[in-house]
Amino acid sequence: MKTFRISAPDEAMRPALQDKIDNLNKPKGSMGRLEELALQIGLIQQSLDPVLRHPCHLLFGADHGIEREGVSVSPREITWQQMINFSRGGGGVNMFCRQHGFELFLIDMGVDYDLSPHAGILNRKIARGTRNFLHEPAMTSEEADRCIDIGAQLVSDCHAKGCNIISIGEMGIGNTSPSSVWMHLLTDIPLEQCVGAGAGLNTEGIRHKLDILRQAVAHFQATLAGGRPKPEVVMRHFGGFEMVAAVGAMLRAAELGMVILVDGFIMTACMLMATRLCPAVRPYAVYCHEGDEAGHRLLLHALHARGLLQLGLRLGEGTGALCAYPVVDSAVRMLGEMNNFENAHITKYF
Amino acid sequence: MKTFRISAPDEAMRPALQDKIDNLNKPKGSMGRLEELALQIGLIQQSLDPVLRHPCHLLFGADHGIEREGVSVSPREITWQQMINFSRGGGGVNMFCRQHGFELFLIDMGVDYDLSPHAGILNRKIARGTRNFLHEPAMTSEEADRCIDIGAQLVSDCHAKGCNIISIGEMGIGNTSPSSVWMHLLTDIPLEQCVGAGAGLNTEGIRHKLDILRQAVAHFQATLAGGRPKPEVVMRHFGGFEMVAAVGAMLRAAELGMVILVDGFIMTACMLMATRLCPAVRPYAVYCHEGDEAGHRLLLHALHARGLLQLGLRLGEGTGALCAYPVVDSAVRMLGEMNNFENAHITKYF
Repeated sequence: MKTFRISAPDEAMRPALQDKIDNLNKPKGSMGRLEELALQIGLIQQSLDPVLRHPCHLLFGADHGIEREGVSVSPREITWQQMINFSRGGGGVNMFCRQHGFELFLIDMGVDYDLSPHAGILNRKIARGTRNFLHEPAMTSEEADRCIDIGAQLVSDCHAKGCNIISIGEMGIGNTSPSSVWMHLLTDIPLEQCVGAGAGLNTEGIRHKLDILRQAVAHFQATLAGGRPKPEVVMRHFGGFEMVAAVGAMLRAAELGMVILVDGFIMTACMLMATRLCPAVRPYAVYCHEGDEAGHRLLLHALHARGLLQLGLRLGEGTGALCAYPVVDSAVRMLGEMNNFENAHITKYF
Repeated sequence: MKTFRISAPDEAMRPALQDKIDNLNKPKGSMGRLEELALQIGLIQQSLDPVLRHPCHLLFGADHGIEREGVSVSPREITWQQMINFSRGGGGVNMFCRQHGFELFLIDMGVDYDLSPHAGILNRKIARGTRNFLHEPAMTSEEADRCIDIGAQLVSDCHAKGCNIISIGEMGIGNTSPSSVWMHLLTDIPLEQCVGAGAGLNTEGIRHKLDILRQAVAHFQATLAGGRPKPEVVMRHFGGFEMVAAVGAMLRAAELGMVILVDGFIMTACMLMATRLCPAVRPYAVYCHEGDEAGHRLLLHALHARGLLQLGLRLGEGTGALCAYPVVDSAVRMLGEMNNFENAHITKYF
């Protein structure tokens, strides 16, 4: 796998940033989480006057071999149908991108359908879906490397246009399953706490999903020489093409010093994977939404993070990340636009 | 007091709205609280295609006699200093209004300072602050009526410009005290659970504030013939001019069928008062932020409401309401912009 040279932001300017925030004309701390965000983004950009420029949203789509085991309430064809719907502007992701001024990129990483007639969808297809990880690795090491490179290259392209904040989403029926397994194997949280309803499974459906994933993990562990598997191995054995591309995008975004808006359960699992591959990615992540998917809260906790919004979203597509963008933007504007006590001629009251 | 003819939205179209929401190309319920908002606003506007037009923010400022008792960490002069700061565009409220395209109105309802040289501030001054409710009613019945009328008239003016969504904020050092007393007397929640740190009191400060408010309530109750006081009487005995104007604004907005964005603790107390004066105001309210002020959660609970955002904001000015606007906007855009299963050519999966 490509090496990413990620440096954590220099902490030297933290006191100056904190001082600027504390001297804005408001009771200290009264902008709550916006103050934390302002500090984080100031550090990422190494600036007392950070700005957000040319926000981009990457939506990676792919199908999953494990879907054949009935682990999802939705059939596989939804993946390609939704990708086409997005390319026509009619999805939730399109609405949010228009509202908040994001340039949207739709990337076919491995959808089980010929999407090449659709000009709005970038063709980066690795294969028509991953292999079924109940029986064999979902992808080869070479395929995983290609996914990483594709995700990274797309972020480089956005950055070249002036983008300094990236949001990432996914479309892939069945992809809560690999996310749950990644979480389980990277955090040691018991599998049953990592598995949830996805887009709407009932109790029986969840039990079946858990049973399949348990078998898959047991099968995987039997192939190991023993000891803890490397994150790369977990990534390619279970991952979706869209998920590994997202990991590559996250690592490259951190390398380029960009803010990364992390969506819900699946994207949080990708960020977890990214931190295991390269811990320095961590300070670049803004966790945008805390959903109701069983395990998402636990996963955030494992990352010492809290979601910015709690709106019960579970659509995917990166909509939770996009929905939170205005709050992130407010935090940055706060630093740039609010007067301080001195220039506002206000008695500093504490 | 002026009579408001408020009708709750006709419920007849609820099934058609719910059906439209359920047929958008997404798993049922997967847009979480955005779906609730879409339903609410569709009902308010009696439309399957609601739109938000010309959002306006009213910021009412006034001083409080009770501030003389040391119930606030901030000195009284902050009220006028901040009003002038807002008129110059340097406050938190200005930043949010610019970001989200709100027209901002600054209204001097009773600030203890001559703000007339400041063209950006509407002069509706009732007096230079209310009387001290530790000893006497904060305002007369005639003054309260004038506040209601002013708030209502400003909303009428906004509506005449095409506005159908209004946000309301306040600036008034000491105004968590009257808010706590309103809450206590209108809900019967014990006073100590209604009193918090305001903009930043320490434990000793909170104890003093509670002690003062307890005395004030006891003094008030001694003047009553017995029985429960009418809401109007509670309103004028303890209220601030800016708070009563906000109540008038809320009632008029509901009368005109507008969406009302309710900010934090103080504005939620004003909405509570509005519902006691006219219960039909209730379905027009969107509770935007659930803050950390002790009692705010309890107050929302008493209104059977949950705040949309939980960002730890405690600045006032209506910033919590403004911060939530994009989410409300997303909910409305969802209804208007997302394809349904049929026109998106997607298999309806459940």
